[in-house]
Amino acid sequence: MIKAGIIGATGYAGNEIVRLLLGHKDVEIAWYGSRSYIDKRYADVYRNFFRLVEDTCLDDNMEELADQVDVIFTATPQGLCASLINEGILSKAKVIDLSADFRIKDVAKYEEWYGITHKAPQFVKEAVYGLCEINRKEIAGARLVANPGCYPTCSTLSIYPLIKAGVIDPDTVIIDAKSGTSGAGRGAKVDNLFCEVNESIKAYGVATHRHTPEIEDQLGYACGREVKISFTPHLVPMNRGILVTAYASLAKDVTDEELRALYHDCYDHEPFVRVLDPDVCPQTRFVEGSNYVDVNFKIDRRTNRVIMMGAIDNLVKGAAGQAVQNMNLMFGFPETEGLLAIPMCP
Amino acid sequence: MIKAGIIGATGYAGNEIVRLLLGHKDVEIAWYGSRSYIDKRYADVYRNFFRLVEDTCLDDNMEELADQVDVIFTATPQGLCASLINEGILSKAKVIDLSADFRIKDVAKYEEWYGITHKAPQFVKEAVYGLCEINRKEIAGARLVANPGCYPTCSTLSIYPLIKAGVIDPDTVIIDAKSGTSGAGRGAKVDNLFCEVNESIKAYGVATHRHTPEIEDQLGYACGREVKISFTPHLVPMNRGILVTAYASLAKDVTDEELRALYHDCYDHEPFVRVLDPDVCPQTRFVEGSNYVDVNFKIDRRTNRVIMMGAIDNLVKGAAGQAVQNMNLMFGFPETEGLLAIPMCP
Amino acid sequence: MIKAGIIGATGYAGNEIVRLLLGHKDVEIAWYGSRSYIDKRYADVYRNFFRLVEDTCLDDNMEELADQVDVIFTATPQGLCASLINEGILSKAKVIDLSADFRIKDVAKYEEWYGITHKAPQFVKEAVYGLCEINRKEIAGARLVANPGCYPTCSTLSIYPLIKAGVIDPDTVIIDAKSGTSGAGRGAKVDNLFCEVNESIKAYGVATHRHTPEIEDQLGYACGREVKISFTPHLVPMNRGILVTAYASLAKDVTDEELRALYHDCYDHEPFVRVLDPDVCPQTRFVEGSNYVDVNFKIDRRTNRVIMMGAIDNLVKGAAGQAVQNMNLMFGFPETEGLLAIPMCP
Amino acid sequence: MIKAGIIGATGYAGNEIVRLLLGHKDVEIAWYGSRSYIDKRYADVYRNFFRLVEDTCLDDNMEELADQVDVIFTATPQGLCASLINEGILSKAKVIDLSADFRIKDVAKYEEWYGITHKAPQFVKEAVYGLCEINRKEIAGARLVANPGCYPTCSTLSIYPLIKAGVIDPDTVIIDAKSGTSGAGRGAKVDNLFCEVNESIKAYGVATHRHTPEIEDQLGYACGREVKISFTPHLVPMNRGILVTAYASLAKDVTDEELRALYHDCYDHEPFVRVLDPDVCPQTRFVEGSNYVDVNFKIDRRTNRVIMMGAIDNLVKGAAGQAVQNMNLMFGFPETEGLLAIPMCP
Repeated sequence: MIKAGIIGATGYAGNEIVRLLLGHKDVEIAWYGSRSYIDKRYADVYRNFFRLVEDTCLDDNMEELADQVDVIFTATPQGLCASLINEGILSKAKVIDLSADFRIKDVAKYEEWYGITHKAPQFVKEAVYGLCEINRKEIAGARLVANPGCYPTCSTLSIYPLIKAGVIDPDTVIIDAKSGTSGAGRGAKVDNLFCEVNESIKAYGVATHRHTPEIEDQLGYACGREVKISFTPHLVPMNRGILVTAYASLAKDVTDEELRALYHDCYDHEPFVRVLDPDVCPQTRFVEGSNYVDVNFKIDRRTNRVIMMGAIDNLVKGAAGQAVQNMNLMFGFPETEGLLAIPMCP
Repeated sequence: MIKAGIIGATGYAGNEIVRLLLGHKDVEIAWYGSRSYIDKRYADVYRNFFRLVEDTCLDDNMEELADQVDVIFTATPQGLCASLINEGILSKAKVIDLSADFRIKDVAKYEEWYGITHKAPQFVKEAVYGLCEINRKEIAGARLVANPGCYPTCSTLSIYPLIKAGVIDPDTVIIDAKSGTSGAGRGAKVDNLFCEVNESIKAYGVATHRHTPEIEDQLGYACGREVKISFTPHLVPMNRGILVTAYASLAKDVTDEELRALYHDCYDHEPFVRVLDPDVCPQTRFVEGSNYVDVNFKIDRRTNRVIMMGAIDNLVKGAAGQAVQNMNLMFGFPETEGLLAIPMCP
Repeated sequence: MIKAGIIGATGYAGNEIVRLLLGHKDVEIAWYGSRSYIDKRYADVYRNFFRLVEDTCLDDNMEELADQVDVIFTATPQGLCASLINEGILSKAKVIDLSADFRIKDVAKYEEWYGITHKAPQFVKEAVYGLCEINRKEIAGARLVANPGCYPTCSTLSIYPLIKAGVIDPDTVIIDAKSGTSGAGRGAKVDNLFCEVNESIKAYGVATHRHTPEIEDQLGYACGREVKISFTPHLVPMNRGILVTAYASLAKDVTDEELRALYHDCYDHEPFVRVLDPDVCPQTRFVEGSNYVDVNFKIDRRTNRVIMMGAIDNLVKGAAGQAVQNMNLMFGFPETEGLLAIPMCP
Repeated sequence: MIKAGIIGATGYAGNEIVRLLLGHKDVEIAWYGSRSYIDKRYADVYRNFFRLVEDTCLDDNMEELADQVDVIFTATPQGLCASLINEGILSKAKVIDLSADFRIKDVAKYEEWYGITHKAPQFVKEAVYGLCEINRKEIAGARLVANPGCYPTCSTLSIYPLIKAGVIDPDTVIIDAKSGTSGAGRGAKVDNLFCEVNESIKAYGVATHRHTPEIEDQLGYACGREVKISFTPHLVPMNRGILVTAYASLAKDVTDEELRALYHDCYDHEPFVRVLDPDVCPQTRFVEGSNYVDVNFKIDRRTNRVIMMGAIDNLVKGAAGQAVQNMNLMFGFPETEGLLAIPMCP
């Protein structure tokens, strides 16, 4: 039994880490960090935990936290983890950072896209990008894991088998992504009020969204060269879920079966990636509440393009679930422990 | 390890039984009955089960089913279970009926409200009303359990402590209930299309809803005399959840603390009923996906009334979860086995 | 052609006044007041008005406004109108106050329920309660109209014909109301974020909601004596709409037809109140975007109660539409001018 | 004053034609055709019209209809209009067909994509494609107008200024479209039930959707050569609205201002197309209930692509509103008559 601490426990991702860890056999939560709710009972912020969690919220004191726990989750805005982390902390506890601070290896690129100075560039190289399906071995040995962004998780896993195999032209990749509103966080902003989101859809961050370089890095590693993509996220009136619809031109003359085999080769042994049957489109409702990624593709012979699709629950595989999956790998627990909840539909 | 069969496995309640039983340590599903989808792969109807369920749907053959399984769940329209059940079946398998066929002890009353002839009145007396918090002991010994309706579950548990203690006047009970749309079932009806339900609320079945006599029976047992209530259900644009707001005049001069003590006396030992803190109103989102019932009350001194409130997930505590809880009691499993999922919010 | 000024033009009610007045033949909007958005282009706050409104937002300067316009709408929080109004203003412009400041004739009661000191009690007596169907004549001659609250509008009109006729017992009136989320305003509060409201329903303000005394006053005027009611509002995951379900015991032996005649007598000549056909329940979607009130009732002979139901669009008949209707009466325009938009469904 | 008849008046598009025509000064509806609801009162199907429409539904008798009305709207499934139309009808009444029957000039292409035999190919050449912004003059003189599809309307108008000017490479056009659920029609299908659509998003008809050739035709006319595009529609949990996000590679070295000028040149004189300010993304809620099309674009210099965006209300500009706009042109009414409703938000 290990002890876990959560910094940012009252955000939507933090709340989901709590939900998942309470169902995990080998972990006990020792620290509910939330600067905004210090001394408030955690179950008074999220009443779903009434009678299940008796703790009150504590400050974001990472030093003290490192003395008390084995693993620290930082579910906080960009910059916070980098500003707090140091060698002393890492020597005492493993850190899983759900922010973008350690996802991008090129610090200059990080600083350009995020508009902030990186406070702990010395750990960027050591940090392992926690996309379990791709970096499983490195994660197992890591002290510091950069938990992938929600859009990059869904985008990368949807495209990976084809870009890695060289059957699509990397320069033609266009990703049109759609997210539920929990991805926008729990901050009190007019734009995220019910009446502003409900009964509408919009694109945002067009050509400028900060998940773009993260996706480009991962796709670049997969195909062995630099990649520039178009990435457009959209806000959808639903709580949870990300759907990725990605487009690319075929670089080779391939059959449906050949592409399908590439997906199956990559994912058939994966506990959380499901390659759907031919002609079945992923729907976010069929992964809701679960750590699954549902992927599929369709060739459009008329345009010589392939449409790649993926669906995740942005709070689970796109955040908290993947963080727990990383923790399982880092501590030698079964990778699926605490993560086998079946998608809930409707 | 016991074997379970489900008749009506492709309705929303049936689908939820499948989800819960797949997470149950002591049960294996041996029969996915669905007259509408015979020979179709179950996971092609509900793709959340893709790669998790390989079975195809079978016919509603209760006789054959009784030979193969230990427990049969009937998640079917009124009348079907009564038309199929017989002594032979009951001698081989326990039956948990999610329809109304065996909930009302007075067969004439059943026939009047449901407008059908009861096909198996000989089993009505034997059947135990499966509201675990109230009939726990009888359920444990039952062959046939009448799983309570969704509205009656939430209504009864919200009112029970006060009506049983005699502090409210039974003749003044008014129940105004609000339900998510999954309660309307999965039939292809225009009234339940997205665009007909979304962005609207309405009452329905005013003064005629068939759950009325079921609630009256249970409240009558609690207070020891016949009760007539007003019950008005409403359709709410959300998938899951029932909220009950019930009104009654106080019959005695009581303090807040005395009423509160009555709720706590009834429910503090209950694994699934949570009496909320003073002034906290139940919200359906805080029980979503779980078997919990959140209850609370508020005295209105100006009118000498008490407002009693309760929230459940209609598909879990209001249907499938309660059915599994009944199964646990009937087979001597821990009552909470397979039912400890934490409410998912958002 | 008269000129209108709006204080609080960027709230949801203010925005709706703008929408309605832009379609009104005899009014020109001369002042878009919004303390939070001074100097910001109005159409940048509400982009539905792009290319339709070129004005920028101005301060809430009621004195200056009174010099420039013929009618002032105050769509602001409680207390603001009372703190700004004076005889000089009223001598120059008519005022329609959408807040509660002048709705309750008993200042002490207002101060008790709203928890603020009334800053202009000298105008309370003069102010006319702007429920057009009831106070049409007084409104026509008023300088200051207190525009009714959303819940009181729907509640009063649903119950009025029966309580006025003495066929229901005023002491038994219970109002269970359900509102869309625009009723909660456009303030940036966590409780009103999409993910906090969506997929849930809750009661709030139980036994303490500030619309209670307003409803009691109006029902009291109707039946000629003091009335105390139970009133419970609920928050529903939809943008617009209020549904009222009201309960009362019958005080006389009446037939369905007699009750129906009471409704028709009251409302058949009303342009905006529709008495639905027998057994048809009001649905908020059928009044969305319009100034209509749909009402109906159902007798429950088993309990000797009548269930009265009403549906409005809370932003139209519950706020801006009624305000425009009042303005029409005050200025001698046709009462329905600018208000004949047909409900939009779906 | 002309008379109009509607075949398919009880579908969502038909219902919207009714709503718009009731607000039109120069038209009277003389025929509510609905094969499914013959002899049923129209206002009993859509209760928003209670007290506003007294007519009952009639059969789809186009011959008889042509004798009684000046204009016939067919808001029916593909194939019906073509199967009923003839020279006699067209000599007596103008026809606006909301189905796809006369949208595609190449009958073979129509038959291939729609899988049906065209029953009236002799009228295909005569029919005018009713995209008013592009074919205004031809529409004014037409007897038979093919009202554009919802996706093609939004897609074409979003892309038109750039593809016409030759600044984008037609072979690189990818259209990712998102639609509210009213686009799926009012048929009683399980897939369109509230609980199947709510809280989810999915692509459908990937690489096979029948609006593809219609869009390709229009873009082809604009750029003067054959075009093949990728088109992927998605189903979004909202009632109304289509958002198009379209991608293309720039074919020339252009500035933001040059592209912006192209949009303004095309649309500044258009009553219903609004070119948004730089960096403002269209949102469907800001056109809801209106005939507006909000368009904008963003250049992504990193990838040398332009992202073009457009938003419409699928039932108004995407169906009924455009049909009325066509009617106005065909009968010489002011083009905006009956169509100036302001978008309703929230």
